[in-house]
Amino acid sequence: MKILVAGGAGFIGGFLCEALVNAGHKVVCADDFSLGKKENIRSLSGTPQFKLYVQDICDIDAVSDIFSREGFDYVMHLAANSDIQASAENPQVEYKNTYTTTYSLLENMRTHHVKKLFFASTSAVYGDKQDERLDENTPNLAPVSYYGAAKLGAEALISAYSHMNDMAAMIFRFPNVVGPRLTHGVIFDFIARLKKDPAKLRILGDGNQTKPYLYIDDLVSGILRFIDAPAGVSLYNIGVETATSVKTIADIVCEEMRLPDVKYEYTGGSSGWKGDVPKFNYCMDKIYAAGWSAGYTSDEAVREAVRKNLK
Amino acid sequence: MKILVAGGAGFIGGFLCEALVNAGHKVVCADDFSLGKKENIRSLSGTPQFKLYVQDICDIDAVSDIFSREGFDYVMHLAANSDIQASAENPQVEYKNTYTTTYSLLENMRTHHVKKLFFASTSAVYGDKQDERLDENTPNLAPVSYYGAAKLGAEALISAYSHMNDMAAMIFRFPNVVGPRLTHGVIFDFIARLKKDPAKLRILGDGNQTKPYLYIDDLVSGILRFIDAPAGVSLYNIGVETATSVKTIADIVCEEMRLPDVKYEYTGGSSGWKGDVPKFNYCMDKIYAAGWSAGYTSDEAVREAVRKNLK
Repeated sequence: MKILVAGGAGFIGGFLCEALVNAGHKVVCADDFSLGKKENIRSLSGTPQFKLYVQDICDIDAVSDIFSREGFDYVMHLAANSDIQASAENPQVEYKNTYTTTYSLLENMRTHHVKKLFFASTSAVYGDKQDERLDENTPNLAPVSYYGAAKLGAEALISAYSHMNDMAAMIFRFPNVVGPRLTHGVIFDFIARLKKDPAKLRILGDGNQTKPYLYIDDLVSGILRFIDAPAGVSLYNIGVETATSVKTIADIVCEEMRLPDVKYEYTGGSSGWKGDVPKFNYCMDKIYAAGWSAGYTSDEAVREAVRKNLK
Repeated sequence: MKILVAGGAGFIGGFLCEALVNAGHKVVCADDFSLGKKENIRSLSGTPQFKLYVQDICDIDAVSDIFSREGFDYVMHLAANSDIQASAENPQVEYKNTYTTTYSLLENMRTHHVKKLFFASTSAVYGDKQDERLDENTPNLAPVSYYGAAKLGAEALISAYSHMNDMAAMIFRFPNVVGPRLTHGVIFDFIARLKKDPAKLRILGDGNQTKPYLYIDDLVSGILRFIDAPAGVSLYNIGVETATSVKTIADIVCEEMRLPDVKYEYTGGSSGWKGDVPKFNYCMDKIYAAGWSAGYTSDEAVREAVRKNLK
C-alpha cells in the first residue's frame, strides 16, 4: 500500500516508517519538524520506497496537493504535539498541532476519498481516574490536560468522518512509549540531569507516580498487526498491564549510568505537574483477545530505553 | 453578574439574554450573525443592562479586547452552528463555528481569569445508540455527525481547561429545542413547505424518526436554575423523556394550519439524512434528582412551537 505517515519524523513515526518500508509498503512521510528530527528517518534516506515532505499538516490546501500528487491508500496520523508538559503552558500547541492536524487530514481523506486511517490516541483521554482499571468502555472520559482534550476531540472527529464517509479507522490509545532517540519525558530528563550533575537528581512530584511504559518495538508491531481495520471505528488500548514508578525509573537510570550514590531531591506533591495523570491502570483484555501482547514489561521497557539512550 | 452570552442573538441565545436581563444580570451578547438575527434580541435594544457586539468568536484577539473592556463574571457559550443538516455537506462549519469558538472562549477565560462557564452541548455527542437509554454515564460516545463530534471535542476542552484553571463549568446536553422564531429544523421546514404548497408535504425519511423536543421556556428555566455551578465540570442531559415522531409533527402542523387533506410524500429510509440520529431515548434521572423538570411534554412543545411560528 501507499501510506502517508503524518508526523513520520517524530520519535514513534520514524520507527513506524522504517517498519512499514521493511514490510514492503511505499511510505510518504509528512512532518513539519516542530518535534520531528531528520535523525529519526535517516536510515530511510535514499530508499526508493520512502519520500519526505516538510509540511505543516494544518495547512489543508498544501496537504491536499500532496494527496493529489501521491494518491494514498492509507493515512497513519501521528502528527501531534507529544510533550504534554510543554503544552500545559501553551494550549494553542494542542489546538493546532493535535486537533487541527486531525481535522486537516480527515478533510483531505474525505475530499480525496481515502478510506483507511490509523490514529495515535492516548491514555490521557481518560483523565485522572486514579485506581480505576481503564478499558475501552470506561465512561465519563474527562481529560485533565489540553493534550488529552485535543486527542479526545480528534477521536470524536474520526467517529463522525468515519460514519459520514464510510472509512475504516483504527485508533490505538498509547500509554508512555519509550525507546531509542527520546527527545523529552522522564527518562530523557533524568539522563540529561545526571550527565550535568551526577551527585543529585531532581524528581518532579513525590516519585510515586506510576504508569505503564511500552517499548517502541512492541508498539510498532501492534500497529502493523492491526493494519487491516474493519469498516467503522476500531478502538484499542495498547500497552502493558505492568507499570513503573518514577522512583524506579530513577533507580534504573542510576544503575545503568553506574551512579550508586545519587541524592534524590523530590519537588513534592502527587503529580509531576498540573495536568499530569500520576497513576493509571490499563486494561489490555481487548487487545489480548485480538491476539497481541507486548514483549517487554514496563520495567524492562524502561531499562532497555535507558540503555539505548545512553549509547 | 456580568455575563457574556456568546451566540446570544441565536434562537436559544435571544431567549436566554432576555431571561438573564429579567433576572437582574448585566448581559453582553457577542454574535457574528451567521445564524443569529437582530430580531431575536430586538426586545432588549435600548435596555441599559444589555449590550451587543457583532463579533466572530473565533477571533481570539478581538474577543480578548471585549473581555478586557467588559470584565466578565460568567461566560455562557452558545456560539455554534446549530444546523446539523447544513454542516453535513461542509464540516468546516463545525471546525470553525462550534470547536474553534469554544477554544477561543476558553483561552480568553484562561488569560482573563474568568472562572464560570455554561456550555450548550447536545444529545448528538452520544451518536446513534438506537434504543439504548442515554444517561450521562453512557460509555463509548460515538458521534455520527460533524456537529456532534465538534461538540464532544468542545466538552473535552472544557474538561481540561476546567481542571487546569480551576473553573466551574456547567454543561447541558440539549435535545431538539423548539419555540417561537425558528430558523431551521423540521417544524420550520414543514410550515414553509405547506405555505408554498398546501396539497402535499415532502417528509425526509420514513417519518418514524422519533426524538424528544424541549420547549425553549423550559430550557431557559433550566439554565437559570443551575446558574451556580460547583467547582469542576457538571454535566446534565436536559430535555424530556417523551418523544415525538416526524409523522406526528407533520400531523400537528397540518392540524394547526387547518389543512386536513395534505398528502405525505416520504423520501424513505430510517433517517432524514446521513449523520441524523433517527431515534433516541433520553434518561432524565440526574436532572430530575437535582430538582428540575420540563413543563411541556415533547408533543406539547411541538404544538406550542407550531402555533408560535404560525403567528
